[in-house]
Amino acid sequence: MKENKLKFMQEAITLASNNASSLGGGPFGAVVVKDGEIISSSGNTVTPDNDPTAHAEVNAIRMACKKLKTFDLSGCTLYTSCEPCPMCLSAAYWAKLDKIYYAADRHDAANAGFSDAFIYDQFDLPLEERTLPIERILKEKGFDPFNLWVENENKQPY
Amino acid sequence: MKENKLKFMQEAITLASNNASSLGGGPFGAVVVKDGEIISSSGNTVTPDNDPTAHAEVNAIRMACKKLKTFDLSGCTLYTSCEPCPMCLSAAYWAKLDKIYYAADRHDAANAGFSDAFIYDQFDLPLEERTLPIERILKEKGFDPFNLWVENENKQPY
Repeated sequence: MKENKLKFMQEAITLASNNASSLGGGPFGAVVVKDGEIISSSGNTVTPDNDPTAHAEVNAIRMACKKLKTFDLSGCTLYTSCEPCPMCLSAAYWAKLDKIYYAADRHDAANAGFSDAFIYDQFDLPLEERTLPIERILKEKGFDPFNLWVENENKQPY
Repeated sequence: MKENKLKFMQEAITLASNNASSLGGGPFGAVVVKDGEIISSSGNTVTPDNDPTAHAEVNAIRMACKKLKTFDLSGCTLYTSCEPCPMCLSAAYWAKLDKIYYAADRHDAANAGFSDAFIYDQFDLPLEERTLPIERILKEKGFDPFNLWVENENKQPY
């Protein structure tokens, strides 16, 4: 089993390196594994796809869900060449992944010019000190969708 | 200008309510605005699309990028019916949005059964206390993609 873990991580790192030495996208790669088999794998495609959410982990999660026809990846493990940014870590929670393995970390990414550590640090700041301003408006109408949702007997929770 | 802000937020809330009272997806809606005009709008489509990353904000960001043919939404504002979860907040940073407006908050979402506040709280825990285990392996190989990236003179940073 230990050897398999290293093999899956090496696959994620190879995807990242292939991107890094081409025009593919950012130097990140990820693999989703279930029952010892690779379900999906992807590099980062932010620049070629014009999609700021197309990180390797998000891509691999989306592809695995499409393949398994579910929004619930319980029983799956994510191997990623670099510690997930807060977007990808949250995506892993929403996808109900069992475990995450990573090789490089947010500080290595920062040294190569990426904002992962910066965004993590933003989360710890009070709203008014963040670089991306965020403001609450129309608070009293914001409950309406949740009230309708709670009342809807045909809803599909996730 | 103030009236426009309320109009855009009402549009996001209407998308959320439409979802909530149908089988469309989670009770969330979002709108991306540039120069006073709506560029994109979407409800949450996690369940119909089998995509745990298809939150309203991520959908609207991806659609705006596709429309404007860029991964950089500088100059754009996001209106969302509920405070962005950590995934969507990070996506807003990566997309370089100017500002976020929201109506309901993470605690309202929790009352309706959603994990936004739970995932925010996970970020504040030491790795070993989180519900989603995360482990570093193959650390020494993790730098390779970043080294290749730094050396690549044809790379497209983002």
